[in-house]
Amino acid sequence: MPRNLVELSSTAAVEALRTDSIVVLPTGAIEHHGPHLPLSTDFLVAEASAKAAVELAAENGVNAWLLPGLAYTKSDEHHWAPGTVWLSWETLMQTIVEIGESIAQTPCTKLVFYNGHGGNVALLQVACRELRRRFGLQTFLIGGMMPANGGAKSGENEFGLGIHGGHVETSVVLHLRPELVDMSLAVRSVPEHLLDYNLVGFGKPVSFGWVSNDFAPGGVVGDPTTATAEYGKEHFEANVAQAAAAFAEIAVFTPAPAPKRIGFSAS
Amino acid sequence: MPRNLVELSSTAAVEALRTDSIVVLPTGAIEHHGPHLPLSTDFLVAEASAKAAVELAAENGVNAWLLPGLAYTKSDEHHWAPGTVWLSWETLMQTIVEIGESIAQTPCTKLVFYNGHGGNVALLQVACRELRRRFGLQTFLIGGMMPANGGAKSGENEFGLGIHGGHVETSVVLHLRPELVDMSLAVRSVPEHLLDYNLVGFGKPVSFGWVSNDFAPGGVVGDPTTATAEYGKEHFEANVAQAAAAFAEIAVFTPAPAPKRIGFSAS
Amino acid sequence: MPRNLVELSSTAAVEALRTDSIVVLPTGAIEHHGPHLPLSTDFLVAEASAKAAVELAAENGVNAWLLPGLAYTKSDEHHWAPGTVWLSWETLMQTIVEIGESIAQTPCTKLVFYNGHGGNVALLQVACRELRRRFGLQTFLIGGMMPANGGAKSGENEFGLGIHGGHVETSVVLHLRPELVDMSLAVRSVPEHLLDYNLVGFGKPVSFGWVSNDFAPGGVVGDPTTATAEYGKEHFEANVAQAAAAFAEIAVFTPAPAPKRIGFSAS
Amino acid sequence: MPRNLVELSSTAAVEALRTDSIVVLPTGAIEHHGPHLPLSTDFLVAEASAKAAVELAAENGVNAWLLPGLAYTKSDEHHWAPGTVWLSWETLMQTIVEIGESIAQTPCTKLVFYNGHGGNVALLQVACRELRRRFGLQTFLIGGMMPANGGAKSGENEFGLGIHGGHVETSVVLHLRPELVDMSLAVRSVPEHLLDYNLVGFGKPVSFGWVSNDFAPGGVVGDPTTATAEYGKEHFEANVAQAAAAFAEIAVFTPAPAPKRIGFSAS
Amino acid sequence: MPRNLVELSSTAAVEALRTDSIVVLPTGAIEHHGPHLPLSTDFLVAEASAKAAVELAAENGVNAWLLPGLAYTKSDEHHWAPGTVWLSWETLMQTIVEIGESIAQTPCTKLVFYNGHGGNVALLQVACRELRRRFGLQTFLIGGMMPANGGAKSGENEFGLGIHGGHVETSVVLHLRPELVDMSLAVRSVPEHLLDYNLVGFGKPVSFGWVSNDFAPGGVVGDPTTATAEYGKEHFEANVAQAAAAFAEIAVFTPAPAPKRIGFSAS
Amino acid sequence: MPRNLVELSSTAAVEALRTDSIVVLPTGAIEHHGPHLPLSTDFLVAEASAKAAVELAAENGVNAWLLPGLAYTKSDEHHWAPGTVWLSWETLMQTIVEIGESIAQTPCTKLVFYNGHGGNVALLQVACRELRRRFGLQTFLIGGMMPANGGAKSGENEFGLGIHGGHVETSVVLHLRPELVDMSLAVRSVPEHLLDYNLVGFGKPVSFGWVSNDFAPGGVVGDPTTATAEYGKEHFEANVAQAAAAFAEIAVFTPAPAPKRIGFSAS
Repeated sequence: MPRNLVELSSTAAVEALRTDSIVVLPTGAIEHHGPHLPLSTDFLVAEASAKAAVELAAENGVNAWLLPGLAYTKSDEHHWAPGTVWLSWETLMQTIVEIGESIAQTPCTKLVFYNGHGGNVALLQVACRELRRRFGLQTFLIGGMMPANGGAKSGENEFGLGIHGGHVETSVVLHLRPELVDMSLAVRSVPEHLLDYNLVGFGKPVSFGWVSNDFAPGGVVGDPTTATAEYGKEHFEANVAQAAAAFAEIAVFTPAPAPKRIGFSAS
Repeated sequence: MPRNLVELSSTAAVEALRTDSIVVLPTGAIEHHGPHLPLSTDFLVAEASAKAAVELAAENGVNAWLLPGLAYTKSDEHHWAPGTVWLSWETLMQTIVEIGESIAQTPCTKLVFYNGHGGNVALLQVACRELRRRFGLQTFLIGGMMPANGGAKSGENEFGLGIHGGHVETSVVLHLRPELVDMSLAVRSVPEHLLDYNLVGFGKPVSFGWVSNDFAPGGVVGDPTTATAEYGKEHFEANVAQAAAAFAEIAVFTPAPAPKRIGFSAS
Repeated sequence: MPRNLVELSSTAAVEALRTDSIVVLPTGAIEHHGPHLPLSTDFLVAEASAKAAVELAAENGVNAWLLPGLAYTKSDEHHWAPGTVWLSWETLMQTIVEIGESIAQTPCTKLVFYNGHGGNVALLQVACRELRRRFGLQTFLIGGMMPANGGAKSGENEFGLGIHGGHVETSVVLHLRPELVDMSLAVRSVPEHLLDYNLVGFGKPVSFGWVSNDFAPGGVVGDPTTATAEYGKEHFEANVAQAAAAFAEIAVFTPAPAPKRIGFSAS
Repeated sequence: MPRNLVELSSTAAVEALRTDSIVVLPTGAIEHHGPHLPLSTDFLVAEASAKAAVELAAENGVNAWLLPGLAYTKSDEHHWAPGTVWLSWETLMQTIVEIGESIAQTPCTKLVFYNGHGGNVALLQVACRELRRRFGLQTFLIGGMMPANGGAKSGENEFGLGIHGGHVETSVVLHLRPELVDMSLAVRSVPEHLLDYNLVGFGKPVSFGWVSNDFAPGGVVGDPTTATAEYGKEHFEANVAQAAAAFAEIAVFTPAPAPKRIGFSAS
Repeated sequence: MPRNLVELSSTAAVEALRTDSIVVLPTGAIEHHGPHLPLSTDFLVAEASAKAAVELAAENGVNAWLLPGLAYTKSDEHHWAPGTVWLSWETLMQTIVEIGESIAQTPCTKLVFYNGHGGNVALLQVACRELRRRFGLQTFLIGGMMPANGGAKSGENEFGLGIHGGHVETSVVLHLRPELVDMSLAVRSVPEHLLDYNLVGFGKPVSFGWVSNDFAPGGVVGDPTTATAEYGKEHFEANVAQAAAAFAEIAVFTPAPAPKRIGFSAS
Repeated sequence: MPRNLVELSSTAAVEALRTDSIVVLPTGAIEHHGPHLPLSTDFLVAEASAKAAVELAAENGVNAWLLPGLAYTKSDEHHWAPGTVWLSWETLMQTIVEIGESIAQTPCTKLVFYNGHGGNVALLQVACRELRRRFGLQTFLIGGMMPANGGAKSGENEFGLGIHGGHVETSVVLHLRPELVDMSLAVRSVPEHLLDYNLVGFGKPVSFGWVSNDFAPGGVVGDPTTATAEYGKEHFEANVAQAAAAFAEIAVFTPAPAPKRIGFSAS
C-alpha cells in the first residue's frame, strides 16, 4: 500500500492524518563520495531506507507516511569538490523550519527526520527543538546508516574512522544500486594519524571542525575496498527494522509523563 | 542511457560536464490541487517532463543532465490548505542561489529550471538574473505545462482561467499517474466574474496579488471535469518535444553576439 | 486637485481613504540608459505617468492617491555601469513588504505598483502575493511603458528587442523632459543574433537570465535613433489613459465572486 | 544650473564626478506630524534644504550633486499612526548600505546624508561607519533642521522639548509649502513632566527609548501654535547657508593627517 | 549585598523583580586601545562602573539589578587591529533585541544599557526604541565614561579629541586595574588637523564615518601620557555617583504624563 | 600567571599568540535551573572550568589563553521560564562566526569552545565546521560538565536522565559557589516514563526535540537532592584535568596527516 503522503489530495491527507500519525522526511545529500560512489549516495540511501521503514511500520499498524526527501542539504565539508550541491546552515535550517510549520497545519503532530548524511545531524538537532518550541510539533531524528545507530560494525581496517564513502556506505549502495558503484576505483583512505590523539577525534570527548579535504583529497574517509553487497543488505535491513520499531515507539511517544503514572515526582 | 547527474561520482561528473552541457533542475510544488488531484501534482509533472525532455535531448546529441527536483517551493497562494508544504520567498530564493553557486563550481555553465508550478515563475526569473550576475552562470526558465508555453488549449469551459487543478493539469496527471486521480471528486470552479474586468486579470495589462481561496474554498481554479488521459498524453508529449528542442538551443545559446556577426551595431 | 497622499496630515489621510480607495506607488530605477538618456529615465517616467493617471482617474471619480515613488530599485542587470544605484532583491522586497504593511494600517485596502522598470516586474509579482497573504491587502501591478501593456509598437528596426533605452523610452523622455536627452549620442544597439533562437528569448517559451552588458557595453538594448517627441507623447498619453481606466476597475475589483452571482460554481 | 546627478547619463555622471565631488542624499520620513502638518513634512524639508544647499555650494565652486531623496525611512516611533509609512532598521540600513556601495563604484568618494528626520540619526551614524569600513567611502551626516545643528532656537513655550511638529518644523513648512499647513488644527503638546527629571531626557546624560504616543496621542511633541513663515524662512536659510559651508569643508575633508603637517604626533 | 540578577534562581528572580525594578546590562568592547591599554578596556570599565552604580543605587533604595555584561560588541572602527573581537551591527542589534525580549518576560519593565564603548552608542539608541515599540519595555542608555556624560574634562593636550585610549580612559584603567597599563608605551596621538574644520568633526554639526586607522596606525585617538590614577578615581567615582542618581530617576520614570498633572496640554 | 587574552594590549596579544596557541571561549547560559540553583549555573561553571583548565594547561607548557565567556546563548528549551535570557539560533550562530572571524585575524589558529550548556552543543558543532571552512581556523568543542565527557557518574536515582539541575550540576555549584544554592528547595524531577522507550530518548538511536516544561514545570530534569560539594569538587577537578590534557593535544593537533607518516594511504 502506498505511503507517500503527497500522493494523497489535500482533503484525503487531512482525513488520513491523526495525532498518532508520523510523517517521515528523508534528508540526504548530494556530495562527493569518492571516485567509486555516486554523488547521490546519502540521498538514495535515506530515501530507500525511509521508504522501507515506513512501509514496514505501516504493515505493523503504525500510521506512518513518507514525504519527498531533501536531496540538497548541508554538505559544507565537501564544498571544495565539484558536483557537491549544498545549502548553507541558514538556508537548510529555514527550509526545515518552514516544512515543519507546514506539517504543523495538518492533524499530524509528529515529524521524523530520517537522515542519511552525518553533516546534517547537528543542524537537525537544532531544528528539532526549534519546531517543538515554535509550533508544538513533536520532532524526532533517526540516522540512516551510521554504525552507532544501526549497530553495524565499521570496516575492519577503518579503526572506527570509516565515516564517509567507506565500508558501510559502499556496501549499502552495492546492495541498493550496484550499477552506480565502481569498485575498481575504490581506494582506502583512513586518517590513521587521528588515532594518536586520546581526547580529540570522532566520538572522543573533544570534537573538532573539519572539512573532508583536511584528511585527503580523494573525498573518502574510510576503507571501501572491503565492501560487499551482502554486508550492505544485512546492514540496510537491520537499519530498516530498527527504524520501523522506532516508528512504533514514536507513534505513542510523549515527552510529558502519563497523567496517572506512579513513581514520577516533579515539583 | 541514464542522465541523472548525481548518479555519477564527483570525478565522473567533472569529466561528463562541458561548457555546452546543460543541467536541468525540476521545480515542483506540494500543494492543494483540489480533492481530485494529489498534493504532488506539480512536482510529479515537473520531474516526469524534465526527465523525458532530458532523455530526448540527449538522444539528439545534447549533453543534458537531470538533477533531483525541488519538491517544496513557493506555494504561498495555497498556504491556507493543510497538506501544502511550502517555502517562503527568501528561503526558496536562497536555495536556488546556493544550488546555482554549487553548479557554477563545475565545468557546466548552463542551468535550466524546468518549472511545474506557476507560483514559482516570478521568483525563478529573479533567480535567473541573480545567478547570471553573481556567478556568471547562464540560466534558463522553462515552464512545465502552462498552456501559453506548451501551445496547448485551456479547457473549453475555463475561459482562459484554468490555472490550477483544471483541464490541463488534471489531464496530464490522468496520463502520467491515473491511479492518483479521483475524477469522481472533480468539480468545476471557474472565477467567471474575473471576465468582467477588461484590464485587470490573468494575462491582462494589470496583474493582481491573489491567494487561491480568494476565488473558492475548493482549491481549484479551472474545470477538471473535462480532463482526459488522451489529452494529457498529447499535451505532455508536445511539451517534452518543445523542451527537448529548447535544450538544443540552450546548449548553443549565448547572450553575447557572435564575434564576426554582420549587421550587429553596438556603441 | 492635488492627489499626493502624503501632503495630507495623518488624520486627513484617514478621513480621505476608504475601502474603495487606491494608493499608487511609482517604482522607477536609477540606472544606465545609454549615453543619450538620464540615469533617472525609469523613475521620471514612472512618476510622471502615475501622477497623470491618478489625476485623470480622480477626475473620473476614482478615489485615487499618489505616493512618493521609489527611485532606487532592482537594477542588478546594470550593476556594472557607474551611476546605477540599486538595491538587492532582498532589500527591495523587504522595502515593498514594509510599505505595504504600513498601507494596510490605513482604511485603504488597495495598493497599486506603477512600475517603470522591467527589472522590477518579477519581484513586484512576488510582492503582490506576499502582501495579499500577509496583510490581506489587494495588490496590483501595472507596467509603465512596456509596449505589451500600452499597446504601443516597438521601433521598426528593433525587431521586438527594444527593451532598454530604445525607441519607446527615448521617445517618452523626449516628450517629458527633452532637455535631458542628447540625441547626438543615441546609437542603435540591437542584439539581432537573439532572433536566431526560436524558443529562447524575450517573450519566447524559454526566458533567460541576463545582465545588460551581455549584449553590448553601451547600456542600450534597442534603437533610440528613431525616437521622436511626437511618438513619445502619443505613447505616454495612451498609457495614462489605459492606467486611469485600470484604476477605475481596481477601485471595484474583488477577486472573490460577488455573493449572488449566477453561474459561478465552486466546490 | 541643475545639480541632479541622476539627470545625467551614466557616461556624463562618470565625467562629472571627481574625488572631491560630493553626492548628497536627502533622507526624510513619511509620518504622522499632528493634524496640522503633512505626512511628508520631513521629506519635503530634507529635499528642499538639500537642493538649496547643493545649488548654493555649487555656485561657490563645490562639485556638489543631489540624489533623489529617501521618502520612507525609520519612523518606528510613529508606527501606531495611520499614514506613517516606515521601514524597519534592517531594511533602511540595507538600503543605505546598498546605495553607498553603488556610489562607491563611481569616481565620487564622498557621500553626504542630509537628514530631515530625527529618528534616522542613530541609524545613519551606524551606516556612515559601515560604508567607510566596507567601501572606503567618506561619509557625512548633516541634520536638516534640528535646532542644535542649525543654531535656531526652539519655541519659547517648548522648554527644549519641541522635537516633532512643533515651532520649528511648523514654521519651516509654513515657509516652504504654506498650503499644506492648517494652523487651525495646531495644538500645543509639550511633555512638560519630562522637565522634572535631571538626568533622563532629551539631551540629558541618560537617553531613553520612546514612541511618540508615549507622550500624547496627537502625534506632536512641541508647540506649533507659535510658528510663523517668517521664522521658518530665517531658519531654513540659516540651515542652507550652514550646509553649503559644510559642503565646502567636506569637499576637502580628509580624516587622515596631511602628509607634511607639523605638530601631529602618532605612534 | 549581591545584586547580580543571574545569581538568583528563576523563581527568586520573579519574586525580586517589580515594575519599578531596573535591570542593568553593561556593554563593553574587546578592541585595540593602543599599546598601553588592554583589549578589554571598555568592557572592564563598563562592568566595574555598572556594578558600583547598581550597588550604590541599591543602598539608596532602588531595586536595581546587574546582568552579565556584553564583552563583544560593535568595534567595527577597530576591525583592522588584531585582537579586536567584534560583532556586526546586525548581530549586536539582534543580540540586544533578544535579551530585551527575554527581560520583557519577567516582571521587570525597565532595562538600562550601561555602555562603555562609544562605537555602540548609535546602535543602542536604535535598540532602545525597538525594544520600546516591540515589547513595551522602558529602555535607557547611559554612557560609561564619555566626558560629556560624566562631566569630566578631556586631557589638556587633547583639544577635545581624546576619544579612544587617551587621558580619560587611561586614567580610569590606571585606577581600576593599574597592572594592566603600561605607561611606558603610552604615546600621544591627537588628530589635530581635524581642528581646522569648523563644521565637520566630533561634536560639530556634521559628523563623519571613520575607522580608527584613518587617523593613525597606533589605535589611539587622544593623549594618554597625562593620565593618572588619581584623575581616574575622581572620574570613575563621579560617573558612578551620577549613574546611581540616574537609576533612582529611572526607577520612577515614565514617558507618559502623570494622570492628574496640571499644566500639560495634549490634543 | 594571568591567562586572560583580553587583558593584553593588541600589540602584546599579537606577540603572545603563535600558531600552536589555543584560545578558549567559555559558553554558558542564563536559564532556569530549578528553584535551588542560580540562573547563571551553566555560565559560572563554564567560566570557572575553562579558567582552571587554561591555567593548568599553561603550567604544563601549553600556550593557552582565555576569552571572556558568552553568558547568553541558546536556551530555547527554557524559553518559557522568566529569567531565562536567550539568543535565537541565528543570533548565536552569527555571534560565534563573527568571534571566530576576529580570532582568525590574529596569529592564533586554534579556537576552543568550552561549553557548559547542553543546549549549545549541536549549534557549536555546526559553528566549528563553518569556521573551519570559511576562515581556515581549527576549531574544537569540549563539554563543560556533561557526564559522558567528564567520565563522571550521573546521580543514582536519575537513571541517566539527570541532564539539567540534577545531581552533577548541583554538586558542582555546591563546590564552586555554595552560597548560590538553596538545597531546601531541591526537588527530584526525573522523567522516568522515558525509560519505557527503547529507541527514543537521551542517548538512544532516535533523539527528539524537547523543551524543558515538556517534562515538568519545575525546570529540573534530574535529582539534585543527592548532590554534595564533595562530589562536585571531584567532578570539577576531573573535568579540569581532562580539559587541560585535551588542550595539550589541541596545541599539536592537525587534521591533515603528517607529511612523512608511514602507513597512511590516501587516494
